[in-house]
Amino acid sequence: MADQIKVQKLAGFRDYFVEDVKIREYVINIFKKVFEKYGYEPLETPALENSNIFVGELGDEAEKLFYRFKDQGGRDIMLKYDVMTPMCRTVAENINNIIFPYKRYQIQNVWRSEKPQKGRFREFTQCDADTIGSSSVICDAEFIQMGIEALTNIGFKEFRANINSRKLLSGIIQFAGASEKEFIPICISIDKLPKIGREKVKKELIEKRKISPEVSDKILDLITLTGETEELLTKLKKQLTNIPIAMEAIDELEIIFDYFKTVKLDKKFYLFTPFIARGLAYYTGPVWEFEILEGEVGSVAGCGRYDNIIGKFVGKEVAATGGSFGIERLVEVIKSRKMINISSTIGKVLVTIFDKELFDNSLIVADELRKNNISTILYPVPTDKLDKQLKYANKKNIPYVIIIGPEEVVNGKVVLKDMKTGEQQKLTQQDLIKFLISN
Amino acid sequence: MADQIKVQKLAGFRDYFVEDVKIREYVINIFKKVFEKYGYEPLETPALENSNIFVGELGDEAEKLFYRFKDQGGRDIMLKYDVMTPMCRTVAENINNIIFPYKRYQIQNVWRSEKPQKGRFREFTQCDADTIGSSSVICDAEFIQMGIEALTNIGFKEFRANINSRKLLSGIIQFAGASEKEFIPICISIDKLPKIGREKVKKELIEKRKISPEVSDKILDLITLTGETEELLTKLKKQLTNIPIAMEAIDELEIIFDYFKTVKLDKKFYLFTPFIARGLAYYTGPVWEFEILEGEVGSVAGCGRYDNIIGKFVGKEVAATGGSFGIERLVEVIKSRKMINISSTIGKVLVTIFDKELFDNSLIVADELRKNNISTILYPVPTDKLDKQLKYANKKNIPYVIIIGPEEVVNGKVVLKDMKTGEQQKLTQQDLIKFLISN
Repeated sequence: MADQIKVQKLAGFRDYFVEDVKIREYVINIFKKVFEKYGYEPLETPALENSNIFVGELGDEAEKLFYRFKDQGGRDIMLKYDVMTPMCRTVAENINNIIFPYKRYQIQNVWRSEKPQKGRFREFTQCDADTIGSSSVICDAEFIQMGIEALTNIGFKEFRANINSRKLLSGIIQFAGASEKEFIPICISIDKLPKIGREKVKKELIEKRKISPEVSDKILDLITLTGETEELLTKLKKQLTNIPIAMEAIDELEIIFDYFKTVKLDKKFYLFTPFIARGLAYYTGPVWEFEILEGEVGSVAGCGRYDNIIGKFVGKEVAATGGSFGIERLVEVIKSRKMINISSTIGKVLVTIFDKELFDNSLIVADELRKNNISTILYPVPTDKLDKQLKYANKKNIPYVIIIGPEEVVNGKVVLKDMKTGEQQKLTQQDLIKFLISN
Repeated sequence: MADQIKVQKLAGFRDYFVEDVKIREYVINIFKKVFEKYGYEPLETPALENSNIFVGELGDEAEKLFYRFKDQGGRDIMLKYDVMTPMCRTVAENINNIIFPYKRYQIQNVWRSEKPQKGRFREFTQCDADTIGSSSVICDAEFIQMGIEALTNIGFKEFRANINSRKLLSGIIQFAGASEKEFIPICISIDKLPKIGREKVKKELIEKRKISPEVSDKILDLITLTGETEELLTKLKKQLTNIPIAMEAIDELEIIFDYFKTVKLDKKFYLFTPFIARGLAYYTGPVWEFEILEGEVGSVAGCGRYDNIIGKFVGKEVAATGGSFGIERLVEVIKSRKMINISSTIGKVLVTIFDKELFDNSLIVADELRKNNISTILYPVPTDKLDKQLKYANKKNIPYVIIIGPEEVVNGKVVLKDMKTGEQQKLTQQDLIKFLISN
């Protein structure tokens, strides 16, 4: 054809066929259900926003990835880079109608002009939940419990919430003798500890961050303390007793760990890890991540308290805490580990058509199956040979096929063929329905 | 604050809070369930596409509404204008992997730079289902049955599928003596018949379309014939017996109406309406719309067979039929008629905190409720007065509140307050769970 349209999906974007849609639905529905059980409400914001809510807020590296352009009215607009910033915009615009604390979750696509590579996509789903308008760290504890429940429900068994406090790190840095303005650079280096080890972090602190070896060691000594949570908190308390922000952090962490004890949370699911910093600059209190321990999956959620962000939109302080689960990563692991059974087809049964004269018989059976909520494909071409129809079922992985020939019509039965085993059985319509509902 | 960010949602876009999300979910889940019962598989395509798949395909009016821009790599890209065109792109790109007939549904957002006005939005949800790769009109009949089922399940009682055939209209126009190239303009005028009446359509045919009064009358006489479906088909058959395309259309319509009889579809839900044309140029066979008859809702779905579209992407003919349900319109009607009960909150119950000492008691109750799948909000600030906590429940429309004071702790009971009636009762934890599950 001369005028055939050249077709190509954009690089970094994906089409989802039935299997991918279903795996994503499985994960997303679990998050929705758990979030709602904890009283979080859904929020959805537009794909497009005025750019000004993002520009200047997320750093140069982020801005390089913006899908930003001018609309027909000359407005400077962009596709949403994250779901958190539009949430702030929504809260600010509806500040007089929203009842605080406002617990909202948001599971929507965002767009980033990333260099396409394995595991990096330009369109992906963010899954956030946050409690807005309360500075109580009970909200933080609740989020961690909720995350553990969601990951358990998805099917994960070996994972852990690694918990720390930015205030504690701030106190430790102060105690060690570093200045407040060195806090964020130090945090970025500290975050690498589990990956590169103490010696390399120390080297980075000294060479890149210009922290003295003594100060570096003092920091590293404290954040690498090990032990049971209570023991560790006691040790830190003793050393940091004159640093108010550290004592505040320890108080908050104690509230969180007490919460876990009260709800009898299995200890294997959480760990006080004083070296966790979570790179982002905006955290102000407790921070935590969920780490899948089996395989080399690593962190699947970054979370924490951020009491200073929403205020920039609202014009007065609005405390907030919550986190973001990496749906893409979770889906990838579920797929590669075959953690759930997802069929590659929707139809459970194909009703074939023996010939034109017997079409009505097949239609009636198909209709009856559908009335019983059995996903049914009626073969649409009465003149196609039965063999072609069976091949269709086979190629499409439809588990069962029904054949209704002249003999079956006379006997008031249908032939049910199991496409996996090849076995056939003759059933009354009633038995057919019973069989398909229970198989 | 000096550096407060100016916040404003873009005109023509919407934030969805809990009620809107839930009404949309209600409608979308019904479509999903019904589509899947009929064997249609979900498909999701990216928000962004190369512009070339849309440009030149949808007409000048559509192109004015494109969100089209250059990405960072200089690619000419755009937000998807509809879900049908990306489906064609997907089918073409995966032509060797897709098993035909391919039954797919697609419920996703699309973007159009419409002038913002009541009921028109720049971001809205399309809900399409199509059978691709079969020219059998059994697929068309099945779609109509499926649409009736979906609208019934949503809660509509007075609605109808108005069914016609573009081939029949083509035959009528030929019979009346108009030329093939006048077909589309005539269809556009005919489509206005139910709104403006025969006389005005005739005037438009004569003045705007330059059709002679005789030809116009001949067309209008045939398309305004009334009667029961079979009677009408017989009348048309008699007159159009020498017009092959009309006879082909009547054969196809008979297959469709026979299908309805076989599955005992209630006659009130469908009508053979020879004047329905459906404006779009691309239909090639049966066309139909779903019309809500109560109120002034009108058409909520445009549907039909389009055997020539996908071929432009694939390079060989690929038959297709299906339609698009107007989710926005349906949601609007459901809301304005209060057809379903949607709570403005997710939490069913607020567990208050009597004081700091009794926090654990409240937490344990909240946790137990959640373990029983009851959506529970735990008030997060132990130091807030009970009155403030009750006000929070009231403002948020949380139906029930739980209070656990020192007396309750001693008696092993909790106070449950019904926020609507103000009634209070003391219950054991077991009875509380029973009550909340069944109320």
